[in-house]
Amino acid sequence: MPSLPADVDPRTLTPVLDGRWAALRAEVRARMAAEPYRDPVGLAVEAHRALVFDQLQALATTDVPGLGFDKAYGGGGDIGGSVVSFEMLGFGDLSLMVKAGVQWGLFGGAVQLLGTRPHHERYLRRIKDLDLLGCFAMTEHGHGSDVQHLRTTATYDPDTAEFVVHTPDRAATKEYIGNAARDGHAAVVFAQLITHGEARGVHAFMVPIRDPDGRAAPGVLIEDCGPKAGLNGVDNGRLAFDHVRVPREALLNRFGDVAPDGTYSSPIEGDARRFFTMLGTLIRGRVSVGGSAGSATKRALTLAVRYAERRRQFAKPDGEEVVILDYLGHQRRLLPALATSYALHFAQDELVAALHDTASDAPQEEQRRLESRAAGLKVANTWHATATIQNAREACGGAGYLAENLLPGLKADTDVFTTFEGDNTVLLQLVAKGLLTDYKDAFQNLSPLATARFAAERVLGAVAERTAARKVVDAVDRLTEGDDREALFDRDWQLKLFQDREQHVLEGVADRLRKAGPDPFAVFNAAQDHVLRAGRVHIDRLVLEAFVHAIGRCPDPGAKALLERVCDLYALSNIEADRAWFLEHGRLSAGRSKAVISAVNTLCAELRPHARTLVDAFDIPEQYLAAPMLDGDAG
Amino acid sequence: MPSLPADVDPRTLTPVLDGRWAALRAEVRARMAAEPYRDPVGLAVEAHRALVFDQLQALATTDVPGLGFDKAYGGGGDIGGSVVSFEMLGFGDLSLMVKAGVQWGLFGGAVQLLGTRPHHERYLRRIKDLDLLGCFAMTEHGHGSDVQHLRTTATYDPDTAEFVVHTPDRAATKEYIGNAARDGHAAVVFAQLITHGEARGVHAFMVPIRDPDGRAAPGVLIEDCGPKAGLNGVDNGRLAFDHVRVPREALLNRFGDVAPDGTYSSPIEGDARRFFTMLGTLIRGRVSVGGSAGSATKRALTLAVRYAERRRQFAKPDGEEVVILDYLGHQRRLLPALATSYALHFAQDELVAALHDTASDAPQEEQRRLESRAAGLKVANTWHATATIQNAREACGGAGYLAENLLPGLKADTDVFTTFEGDNTVLLQLVAKGLLTDYKDAFQNLSPLATARFAAERVLGAVAERTAARKVVDAVDRLTEGDDREALFDRDWQLKLFQDREQHVLEGVADRLRKAGPDPFAVFNAAQDHVLRAGRVHIDRLVLEAFVHAIGRCPDPGAKALLERVCDLYALSNIEADRAWFLEHGRLSAGRSKAVISAVNTLCAELRPHARTLVDAFDIPEQYLAAPMLDGDAG
Repeated sequence: MPSLPADVDPRTLTPVLDGRWAALRAEVRARMAAEPYRDPVGLAVEAHRALVFDQLQALATTDVPGLGFDKAYGGGGDIGGSVVSFEMLGFGDLSLMVKAGVQWGLFGGAVQLLGTRPHHERYLRRIKDLDLLGCFAMTEHGHGSDVQHLRTTATYDPDTAEFVVHTPDRAATKEYIGNAARDGHAAVVFAQLITHGEARGVHAFMVPIRDPDGRAAPGVLIEDCGPKAGLNGVDNGRLAFDHVRVPREALLNRFGDVAPDGTYSSPIEGDARRFFTMLGTLIRGRVSVGGSAGSATKRALTLAVRYAERRRQFAKPDGEEVVILDYLGHQRRLLPALATSYALHFAQDELVAALHDTASDAPQEEQRRLESRAAGLKVANTWHATATIQNAREACGGAGYLAENLLPGLKADTDVFTTFEGDNTVLLQLVAKGLLTDYKDAFQNLSPLATARFAAERVLGAVAERTAARKVVDAVDRLTEGDDREALFDRDWQLKLFQDREQHVLEGVADRLRKAGPDPFAVFNAAQDHVLRAGRVHIDRLVLEAFVHAIGRCPDPGAKALLERVCDLYALSNIEADRAWFLEHGRLSAGRSKAVISAVNTLCAELRPHARTLVDAFDIPEQYLAAPMLDGDAG
Repeated sequence: MPSLPADVDPRTLTPVLDGRWAALRAEVRARMAAEPYRDPVGLAVEAHRALVFDQLQALATTDVPGLGFDKAYGGGGDIGGSVVSFEMLGFGDLSLMVKAGVQWGLFGGAVQLLGTRPHHERYLRRIKDLDLLGCFAMTEHGHGSDVQHLRTTATYDPDTAEFVVHTPDRAATKEYIGNAARDGHAAVVFAQLITHGEARGVHAFMVPIRDPDGRAAPGVLIEDCGPKAGLNGVDNGRLAFDHVRVPREALLNRFGDVAPDGTYSSPIEGDARRFFTMLGTLIRGRVSVGGSAGSATKRALTLAVRYAERRRQFAKPDGEEVVILDYLGHQRRLLPALATSYALHFAQDELVAALHDTASDAPQEEQRRLESRAAGLKVANTWHATATIQNAREACGGAGYLAENLLPGLKADTDVFTTFEGDNTVLLQLVAKGLLTDYKDAFQNLSPLATARFAAERVLGAVAERTAARKVVDAVDRLTEGDDREALFDRDWQLKLFQDREQHVLEGVADRLRKAGPDPFAVFNAAQDHVLRAGRVHIDRLVLEAFVHAIGRCPDPGAKALLERVCDLYALSNIEADRAWFLEHGRLSAGRSKAVISAVNTLCAELRPHARTLVDAFDIPEQYLAAPMLDGDAG
């Protein structure tokens, strides 16, 4: 291994992190740094909502809201840039990020991607300018993950050329809907379209929910979800509809339309396939959640590393008190997580570029692959956020528990990220299904049973295509011999180990799902832990590869050397956490496995002097790091 | 394995859980059930503080506050009962538990255990009756874990027979002090005692901090710590003293006294030994935190299991939607955690009994052993709470994020438990040191370096006493052969595996610490992860043994059969989580290791029908489970 330079300038790392949208990132950063906003501390719910609404209005005067919209409607036509700007908002109060995401990403995005020209002309500018505030009303009380089975109905009445939107019972109430409790005047409502007495699956409808004075529209019942663990600047509410009539044109009719006489037509056959195609167009929200989870995690790590660099506790024999980041235990708490944040950042960057570059008429297989990657990285980013922010809080002790030191807000705000925009467990199953079916014919039915069924049908083919797997295993075996240090830090070995694990786990799942018994649910359920694992190790492999690609793009030799070591720490700490599997499957010997633990310790020691550089390279506007625990005398 | 009865009555389990203080538990439960209190949702900080203060006053009219005090002062003389009653308070708003703990446990406990008869006569009744509200002012801004090096001073002035209490700088400010920001009128202040120009180590002093009108006393600076992640019903503050004079009698003089002329005397030689003896008397607080963390975890699990039993998502082929607790993934999320809660409950119960039965003049070795066990179980209970409540929140999806469903409050309130009353990492080191030194001569210096030094000196002896270790290993090896199912469910094998792991890890730590290099800090630091691990696996062994003892006390055969299976799940999920270590050290073969995973899956399936029974057996007053997500139609 080449030795690390003593000192790397964080400004040589930032451009590598900033990547393709570096100019936009710099612009957003500069604007954020100039804003007077701070994280609200101890604000009551209503005051916080009002504050965030003010901030949203200020944001509406910038380029950010329109980035993702077509230029024809005053937008920037820059989908990647739009997602990146949401990611940057994740450095600040996450309520603002979510509120902006609801208005422009989900509500505006649904109009843009599910509607047609008349909808665009009528709504997009107003949505961009906050002249029309809206909601994305998909989730129902009874159906959060299984959105294909939503029970709100929109029944076409040919006599008046209207849809009647109706909530049949409590379970069909729209639930946790952002912008509903206070500010939204309209909602894109997802409902089962019924025409000529026939159900046509879930479609989206533009439904007014408040009158111009802000009162609930006739037939619309609005409830406030009340205080939440976090994100209290967002006004989540419940919506129920009592035979609310909207004109035929309220149907966002890109993927399915109803003629005045009630005749249904669609370019896509099959209700489920159509609905999941619709869902597939809406992945920007999921990508943005992953990105902003990453930003919040970077902020938490920056706070914790800076604190750990100044905080001292317990004296050495010479009387000098030890800086807590010098403790191995503390390094292990923060540095592998920091390396993972780097890895996920580069993977997110690749995802955003793929999202940006995938044409809306790209082949279905490419679209599904993108959706799978978006789902997987949302899972990885948000679970990493939950674990790492928790750790960062604990690493700052009592100081980390005070609201003024920002970590409690970060923890509480990001906590829902693992279960909204797709519950992580459900998303992992989706990722696994994509792998088993090789993305062919796999519309995104989220049902676990569909996973089992598809897998059982397709699995033989998929696995047959993976005969290359054997060669990888051989390579791994061979590399398991010989000098530990040389082998463990061999990037090729790390990559092959990740690839081999993915393939082997996948084959194992395939084997299990093939054993179709009389009860397909029982077959799926017995293998569920393997299915989830298959999703996870697939993502891990993508993430490591993205890190390797990013290193290849780094021009500065010092920065590059540092990134190489950070990548080693990501790879080896991932292997360490999963070493039981590698041992059980003969991929690591007991000795090599112990060497992995030692290598992680060594890397922690080597990277410790660079910890501050690594967090400073995120270049988070200082106002969002203004924690009193970092002021004055560290004590 | 004997098969499980189809249906076990939770009322046959509750008495086993309630144990020795069953009558008291029933009494507290009945009182709590009759109270009008609910968890506050969305309450502003000041309103929450006022509410908790009212509740504290109501509590003061019951037997609870006095349980731990001597009968001579109106107390109950029931130390175990006192700790159990705090544990029961953990079912309710944790702010009340902590506020009560500060007033009666920490403040009152310090007067009782560090003071002498004049202090008892003067203060204990007033403290019990809330006639005197007080603080426990130990932690300083600069010294949270390393409390031996507190920097507040109390300098004796023989001319006036007074101590001058002083905060030399910001780092010496008392920090996070409960009862300080709003209600406390006095504080037990820990300060370096100086007399005749000589420092005598940390002692405790009764210092008034407010005048009768509630204003800060002259020379006392009080700051409010402001909003926290949780526990906002507790008024934490900062205290600084500017040459505040208190009479000589303010010194709580059980372990060290100053004569009017300034002559210092103490029954204990050595400043450090004296201070850690003082600290050792104060372990009730630590035991109570562990117990109430356990209660909060039980509440979160009860909420999550009940939700998972009614919530359905995704349909089977027959159209019926699956109850989410029927998913293996969901079972794995909740049931091993539930088994661990049972295990920790029984271990906590043993600890409370040991605390109750250990005479204050018991041999030092016995006292140290008790302190170590209290530290270890505090660690295990609080980390289990953090992980499990997080999981319970996620397992309830969006509903789990709404404050009304109680999980956000539980998460936020318990979060600080891992770092207060002793940071868990520091406490684990203390546990490990106790093991290495066999509790001999090991006063509770918390410094990691002291750990290394003591270990290096004592380790040869300690390890020599453990030749029995070899025999255990043999037994484990032998049992590793043969039928998986038979072996894995053999309680004796499980116990031996836990014992052997503890001994082996300990020997490994000893080996590493013996390699004393020129820099003792470097030697300690390189082994820190092993040291922490030694603490952890020691606790795991104690916990499993406590579970086994509890099963032996269970008279009902059905309840006993169920507990046996829960104990299997605890043992095997613990082994599963740590199976990399067992594989690396030849304790499990690869095949046996995979069999452990299968066994955990099997146990999850077997215990799934009993999940509701297992949480209902905690017998938590229903008002503390009144989450709207459990009302009406589950959807």
